[in-house]
Amino acid sequence: MGLNEYILGLNNLEKITRAPGFFKFTEHTVAAHSFRVTSIAQVLGDIEEANDIPVDWKMLYEKALNHDYTERFIGDIKTPVKYASKELRGMLQIVEEKMTDEFINQEIPEEFQAIYRRRLFEGKDESVEGEVLAVADKVDLLYESFEEIIKNNPEPVYKEMFIESVKTIKEYGHRPSVQYFFKEIFPELLDENFYGKTAFLKTVDKIMHQ
Amino acid sequence: MGLNEYILGLNNLEKITRAPGFFKFTEHTVAAHSFRVTSIAQVLGDIEEANDIPVDWKMLYEKALNHDYTERFIGDIKTPVKYASKELRGMLQIVEEKMTDEFINQEIPEEFQAIYRRRLFEGKDESVEGEVLAVADKVDLLYESFEEIIKNNPEPVYKEMFIESVKTIKEYGHRPSVQYFFKEIFPELLDENFYGKTAFLKTVDKIMHQ
Amino acid sequence: MGLNEYILGLNNLEKITRAPGFFKFTEHTVAAHSFRVTSIAQVLGDIEEANDIPVDWKMLYEKALNHDYTERFIGDIKTPVKYASKELRGMLQIVEEKMTDEFINQEIPEEFQAIYRRRLFEGKDESVEGEVLAVADKVDLLYESFEEIIKNNPEPVYKEMFIESVKTIKEYGHRPSVQYFFKEIFPELLDENFYGKTAFLKTVDKIMHQ
Amino acid sequence: MGLNEYILGLNNLEKITRAPGFFKFTEHTVAAHSFRVTSIAQVLGDIEEANDIPVDWKMLYEKALNHDYTERFIGDIKTPVKYASKELRGMLQIVEEKMTDEFINQEIPEEFQAIYRRRLFEGKDESVEGEVLAVADKVDLLYESFEEIIKNNPEPVYKEMFIESVKTIKEYGHRPSVQYFFKEIFPELLDENFYGKTAFLKTVDKIMHQ
Amino acid sequence: MGLNEYILGLNNLEKITRAPGFFKFTEHTVAAHSFRVTSIAQVLGDIEEANDIPVDWKMLYEKALNHDYTERFIGDIKTPVKYASKELRGMLQIVEEKMTDEFINQEIPEEFQAIYRRRLFEGKDESVEGEVLAVADKVDLLYESFEEIIKNNPEPVYKEMFIESVKTIKEYGHRPSVQYFFKEIFPELLDENFYGKTAFLKTVDKIMHQ
Amino acid sequence: MGLNEYILGLNNLEKITRAPGFFKFTEHTVAAHSFRVTSIAQVLGDIEEANDIPVDWKMLYEKALNHDYTERFIGDIKTPVKYASKELRGMLQIVEEKMTDEFINQEIPEEFQAIYRRRLFEGKDESVEGEVLAVADKVDLLYESFEEIIKNNPEPVYKEMFIESVKTIKEYGHRPSVQYFFKEIFPELLDENFYGKTAFLKTVDKIMHQ
Repeated sequence: MGLNEYILGLNNLEKITRAPGFFKFTEHTVAAHSFRVTSIAQVLGDIEEANDIPVDWKMLYEKALNHDYTERFIGDIKTPVKYASKELRGMLQIVEEKMTDEFINQEIPEEFQAIYRRRLFEGKDESVEGEVLAVADKVDLLYESFEEIIKNNPEPVYKEMFIESVKTIKEYGHRPSVQYFFKEIFPELLDENFYGKTAFLKTVDKIMHQ
Repeated sequence: MGLNEYILGLNNLEKITRAPGFFKFTEHTVAAHSFRVTSIAQVLGDIEEANDIPVDWKMLYEKALNHDYTERFIGDIKTPVKYASKELRGMLQIVEEKMTDEFINQEIPEEFQAIYRRRLFEGKDESVEGEVLAVADKVDLLYESFEEIIKNNPEPVYKEMFIESVKTIKEYGHRPSVQYFFKEIFPELLDENFYGKTAFLKTVDKIMHQ
Repeated sequence: MGLNEYILGLNNLEKITRAPGFFKFTEHTVAAHSFRVTSIAQVLGDIEEANDIPVDWKMLYEKALNHDYTERFIGDIKTPVKYASKELRGMLQIVEEKMTDEFINQEIPEEFQAIYRRRLFEGKDESVEGEVLAVADKVDLLYESFEEIIKNNPEPVYKEMFIESVKTIKEYGHRPSVQYFFKEIFPELLDENFYGKTAFLKTVDKIMHQ
Repeated sequence: MGLNEYILGLNNLEKITRAPGFFKFTEHTVAAHSFRVTSIAQVLGDIEEANDIPVDWKMLYEKALNHDYTERFIGDIKTPVKYASKELRGMLQIVEEKMTDEFINQEIPEEFQAIYRRRLFEGKDESVEGEVLAVADKVDLLYESFEEIIKNNPEPVYKEMFIESVKTIKEYGHRPSVQYFFKEIFPELLDENFYGKTAFLKTVDKIMHQ
Repeated sequence: MGLNEYILGLNNLEKITRAPGFFKFTEHTVAAHSFRVTSIAQVLGDIEEANDIPVDWKMLYEKALNHDYTERFIGDIKTPVKYASKELRGMLQIVEEKMTDEFINQEIPEEFQAIYRRRLFEGKDESVEGEVLAVADKVDLLYESFEEIIKNNPEPVYKEMFIESVKTIKEYGHRPSVQYFFKEIFPELLDENFYGKTAFLKTVDKIMHQ
Repeated sequence: MGLNEYILGLNNLEKITRAPGFFKFTEHTVAAHSFRVTSIAQVLGDIEEANDIPVDWKMLYEKALNHDYTERFIGDIKTPVKYASKELRGMLQIVEEKMTDEFINQEIPEEFQAIYRRRLFEGKDESVEGEVLAVADKVDLLYESFEEIIKNNPEPVYKEMFIESVKTIKEYGHRPSVQYFFKEIFPELLDENFYGKTAFLKTVDKIMHQ
């Protein structure tokens, strides 16, 4: 029992793919996704700070880095699941949390258990850092799904993911980093050529002006 | 709505890997596993019949072919999950069943719904065919994990899977096909050379004589 | 010698890819193909039965499940081979059959040899089940090639496969399951958006009305 | 020009594999490695803090997360390169740094350039955080190479990497986190069974007591 | 020390991918690229000979076969590197050459060192064979990048590679094989349908008439 | 019709794997194999020349480079096929040759047909170059199978391939390059540590002294 097991668990995260079962031109692992989200959260944190919002960087990095560690227990099955009601998602959440609890009790040395409980349970709360994490997670999903779309991936799930991401990010429109994202970063991303672009941009535009 | 969606779902099963998150020398998809289990069930059915047990072949094939179709909804997350209590496994089972129900209601034409309800819900019951399916599923797990063991896979999960398979198959020792398996097929399989064989065979032997 | 060798052979089928040598966005193994064809044959069998055609389910499942087992001997080299005359295909067929014969003699216990001879040699005969298998095999090829087409695969071989599939299925137009397929399932499949759709649908339409 | 290009660059890091050209049972990308190193640095930071060493967490996370971002320019070619003198490694370092400089000038908005200059240039300096990063980087290499060793990877490069990692970590023996690592974590890791273990442990033991 | 090490080095070339870090629908290894370039050089050599240009076939094959062997030392990092000045490319070249020198001294038996020095250092010189190699290398890059373009790969790097290839080949317009290539082979290649073809052909046309 | 089709065919060779259906730790494509065989033939040619045997380098390179091009038609199915009699192998040979003939007639411009007929049909004849090719082909198979053996691959086929290679190479014991190979290169290769080495070396030794 000890931290060796925690480190070995990072291996699992390199082997669990995001959205398993769906065709992807580019596969992403949970490990790579965690790296990307932390890097994006860092970008957004800079923008917040440039707008005079104080950022607790320790919390921001910690939240982003660990936000999907618990997927080693049941995988990435919550996001794209069709046919799942809110109630079912809640049940999956409970299963994951109970396994996490069991893991901490069995594998983490007692003196560090409180720290891991914070890291593996808290995340997208209502603090600045929690909000930035929520946005970063969706910005990553937006890039991930956009990549599939411009490669002409016919599975409708990627357009749904993209639209859902834009909508969720918009809900955090009060954050300076979100305003900057939509003004400076998003238009650059959309400035690519791909089959079906005109129709796609119209859809995006409609969501942006809802 | 229609059977097109059911056929497209076979694609997902080709992309979901068994035991996600664990290192494997040979990856198996749910689709390939289903093919293998059905082929093994066919082998076992022949042996039952050669021992004058009447086999309802329609039911045997149907049960084996469809026994993991519902994994397209939440993946193969039940078997190797550590840190999961019986209660949590039960919850995952319920989630899967509710999604299956939703899928049948939304995607299967009404005149075929009853058939799919039977196919996707019933399986390892107490009929001869249900028992043969249960055995075939474990024989496949046994071959799958043995393959990893003789390639020197260091993850302990494969030895655990192998042992668990042998134990479960033994519980069906009243079936002629199981007696034949342990007498004629299993010894041939174990007749390979690999690192740590002596210790491994001793463990197997102990289980066989429990 | 024994059934262990037969089961191990399933491994080979998980490693042999369909249409080797051609670029594919999604690779399919012979094992997964066999699973898909059996599942599609099951769909078609239901439709036949709903139209009061008696179905020998044992034969239908058996034929579909085993129809490509012998590809473990020389791989999937018959379908997409350009530059091959009918005579050459015939020669490849003979090679495969002789190896199958050798395999049964060497590896299958005598009491089961007759069964395997039936399973590995008979297949697409003129029985209802043989016809349904022939259709299911082409329906799978149709889905497989369509998937490549809508992902914009530039290899002409996939359009050829698609067209050839439609034509072959049409030849079985007297089967109720084929009529249902073209009326209820096929239009749903074609209802996707992809580059070059208009021209493609025109070609399909022409074949359908030949 | 803008942060979009920085985020797109994360894609490259998901596609660059560590130690290209060498056979590995488990491939690691630079993105996954960065995630792992940051997680390990977090583990080590906790231990430092538990030993009353003040940790600047912002700097620790920042250093770890970004320490290999610049590998998107010339890949992971410095670590395992045989036939390279110290002078040649220095030249490669210069090439990487000049491209990084060019990248910052061309792609990062002016108001953030100073931040990226710090992130992409500073790293393993002599601060507590710089030392913890240096250790975390080697702990990851140690786990990575050990994984290959216990799977019986015959390439000698992995034993060399393992030994080099142990040696480098030992140089930081004044850090409480290193003392804890060798006392509590390392022995747990070595407690696996693998071919050639006795000889291997003897080598490790010799290095530990040098 | 001896030729065993040289042969083992071929393994590395099978594991180093071209243009690492970029998304590709079809990955190419340095080994496969070397095979392709040698085969294309053979095609071009035939055409030269048919136009009464004497070809030193030994030199042509030797140059083509070995032109990228030294990439086992630092990988394929020179071609697609953005942000690299001519000076930096020169430095990478020097690093590669020094390692090659070290390799020959350490691993090649003395009686063969002169031969390997010729093979691994000389290449695209001003001889007929050197020019044909330079053309063949670009023809392969042209096919490689064209393949990505017609599959709708959105990374701009492939269009840049294609255009750069056409331009470089054109510089060798005095070679009969280049004239034949542009007259007989290139138009056949471009005769495919793909998204954005009209705009693409216009660009190509402009380069051809510069 | 033209040489474009020949070049495109190189693509197929990058996608056809050697020994399809068998588990391999390292997959080799026909393209990479062709590169390796040509490089090994070059090594052997040097040794012949150093022993005053005149080498027709044009023929040696040509034979080696093209010796498996025709596998694009039916794949690499001849080598490891169990259950195949000499007669069946002969039939497969005929099929391949007839398709090659068809390919040349349909795709190669008339002025080059004679050259391609020589390249794609002649190969391992009794000339020095034909013998060196035969040896090089087996030396590659020997390295390929040895690599699997030292990684502990349990499939017996690799030991069979290794032994068969040694035996075939020995048949060419009159060639100076073979004598050099067994004296200088082979012992270096065998100088690795692996599970089961003692027993393995004994087998090799027995063959060497037959």
